[in-house]
Parts: sequence; structure tokens; C-alpha cells
Amino acid sequence: MARKRDFPLAQVYGLLEPGPVVLVTTVRAGRSNVMPMSWHMMMEFVPPLVGCVISNQNHTFEMLRATGECVINVPTVELAKKVVACGNVSGRSVDKFKTFNLTPVAGAVVKAPLIAECYANLECKVVDRKLVAKYNFFILEVVKAWIDPGQKRPRTIHHQGEGVFLVACRTIKLPSPKTSFLRT
Amino acid sequence: MARKRDFPLAQVYGLLEPGPVVLVTTVRAGRSNVMPMSWHMMMEFVPPLVGCVISNQNHTFEMLRATGECVINVPTVELAKKVVACGNVSGRSVDKFKTFNLTPVAGAVVKAPLIAECYANLECKVVDRKLVAKYNFFILEVVKAWIDPGQKRPRTIHHQGEGVFLVACRTIKLPSPKTSFLRT
Repeated sequence: MARKRDFPLAQVYGLLEPGPVVLVTTVRAGRSNVMPMSWHMMMEFVPPLVGCVISNQNHTFEMLRATGECVINVPTVELAKKVVACGNVSGRSVDKFKTFNLTPVAGAVVKAPLIAECYANLECKVVDRKLVAKYNFFILEVVKAWIDPGQKRPRTIHHQGEGVFLVACRTIKLPSPKTSFLRT
Repeated sequence: MARKRDFPLAQVYGLLEPGPVVLVTTVRAGRSNVMPMSWHMMMEFVPPLVGCVISNQNHTFEMLRATGECVINVPTVELAKKVVACGNVSGRSVDKFKTFNLTPVAGAVVKAPLIAECYANLECKVVDRKLVAKYNFFILEVVKAWIDPGQKRPRTIHHQGEGVFLVACRTIKLPSPKTSFLRT
């Protein structure tokens, strides 16, 4: 994590808005877990709010509900095999950090660990549970963000189902006078 | 639209889960509108539920709230300039279908028009408004889906903010015994 730097909260939307698979980390009673997730979205710029659906069948659901804290870690294509592997075993029976050789690092605000190998890490707290019972839908606030400034063109992966991922391998820049689509 | 075919609702998640920019179309009192959107997510497989945030400053917000219907159209990189252009003017003053030479096509279930040039079209109805007042957050049900079977590798675009888009230009397939990440 020595190479990671503080990342402005107002720019967090640019990390999650393109829809990368992320790894959600949680910790409870000394045991941590890692879960891949694609069902997430931005809901507000500042403070950054992130909505996400986590099945109540998942070990992470109970961890998040009990602790109210997690880290959203953004992996790149180099970690793709580990991302899939993390999705195919349960944290109830396996320590995924050890099994998949991921490095936990202490965060600044929440107790859940950051994954050192991911190029960005967003420390989050649950701020709204109104739709948890009906849709397993949590609203998180990003309270601290970290990024690896050495990764200029992180190739994020975008899940299409059944083990198929789009890889973001180039960017285009189009003239846009606004920071987002407004009043349209 | 002659080339479009019916698309199974159970596979809709694979279109939206990777986080493409989409174009939301609405119609009210004979006037239609087009709005680019990146703040959306899957919430359920079947029937497919999609959560989305649409600013209450946007013309589309009022259109959607009043009619309860829209179409989510998925463009590819060939339409990128039009996508940005649609985001930088308001449907209050401009007919975007005419201005940007987009072709409206009647849907099968909802009144909002499909955009012929987009490779996939999802007809949607609003099914939950509980978080509209606080977060501008609508939950939509996809009631009918269409796809262009001729586009084998649609290069979707993924917004990172300020006119920068990731382009999905290759896919990888990793062994995964499950259709999604479960119980992790």
C-alpha cells in the first residue's frame, strides 16, 4: 500500500460508474471475507453514495448487515482468475485472503481490510437500509478512497454473466462541456 | 428494427451488469425524449429489475414520474458522439430524435419509443418509487427486451466522467461453474 495515495471523494464516481466488477471485503469477529460484486451503482457525487445488491444467501450479506462497514476494492484484468475464484467458494468455509494469496491492509476509517493488489479501494459505511428487506439493497457512503497512481490505464473487467467479462482496453475522450449529463 | 429479435428476459442482466452508458427514452403527450444514463444497476434476474438514479433536474425525471414507462436503449461506440450530444441539451427545448437523427420505433408493451440504432432495447415500467423523493431512485421492471443478433461483439461505452469513456473491446471467458457469484 506504500504506493497508494489518497483519492478525492468527488472523483470516486469515475471509478464505479463504468460498471467494473469489484471485490467487497468485510470483517467480523476477527474473520474477514472477500466477495465479487457487479450489482452496484453510483447514487450521489458528494458525499459519494453507492447502491448495491448483495444476496441474502451470501456470507457477506450477514457480515455487512452486522457491521455496517465494508471496502469496495477495484481489481484489474490481472486479477480476473482470483475474482472468479472468490465468487465460487463461500467465506463460511474458506479464508479467501489466504487461499487466493490476497494481501489485507488496514484501512483508515473502517475495520474491513483493503486488498493491496486492487488498484483502488473505497472504504464504505452503510447509510440506508430501507430496501434491504425487500431487495437486499444497501446504500453505502464512501468515507475514504485510495488509488494506485502508478496505474495509468487500469484495465477493469465488466461481468456479462457465466464467466464472460468485457475488458476495458481503450478510452475515448469526447468534447463535453459538463461534468455529467444534466437536465436532459 | 426488422433485424431485431426478441431477447430472453432471463439474460437481460448480461446487458446491463457490465455498466454501459444507456439512452433512456420517454414519451408524454406526444413528445418524446432521449437521455444518456450511467447510474443504473441490476437488482433481480427474473423478472429483471433495474435500479436507476435520474436527477430531478432532468426533463426525463418528470416524464418518467408522470408516465411510469421508459425504454433503456444500449448504444455502441459508433453512437458515442450522439450519446454525448444527447446529454448536453435538454429535451425541454430540443427534439433529440430529429436533431441527432435517431430513429424512433414503436415498442410492444410501453408507449416510449425504442431507438433503432441501439443494439439492444429494454421496455420498462416503474415498479417501486419508495426512494424517488430522497435519492431520485427508481426501480424499473424490464417487461420486454429486443436485441440485434447481427452484432456479435457490441463495443459498449462506459462513462468515467467529463467526456471520457472506456470502450469494451475484448472479452475473456473464465471457467465458472455458476451463473453468478453465489453465497460468497
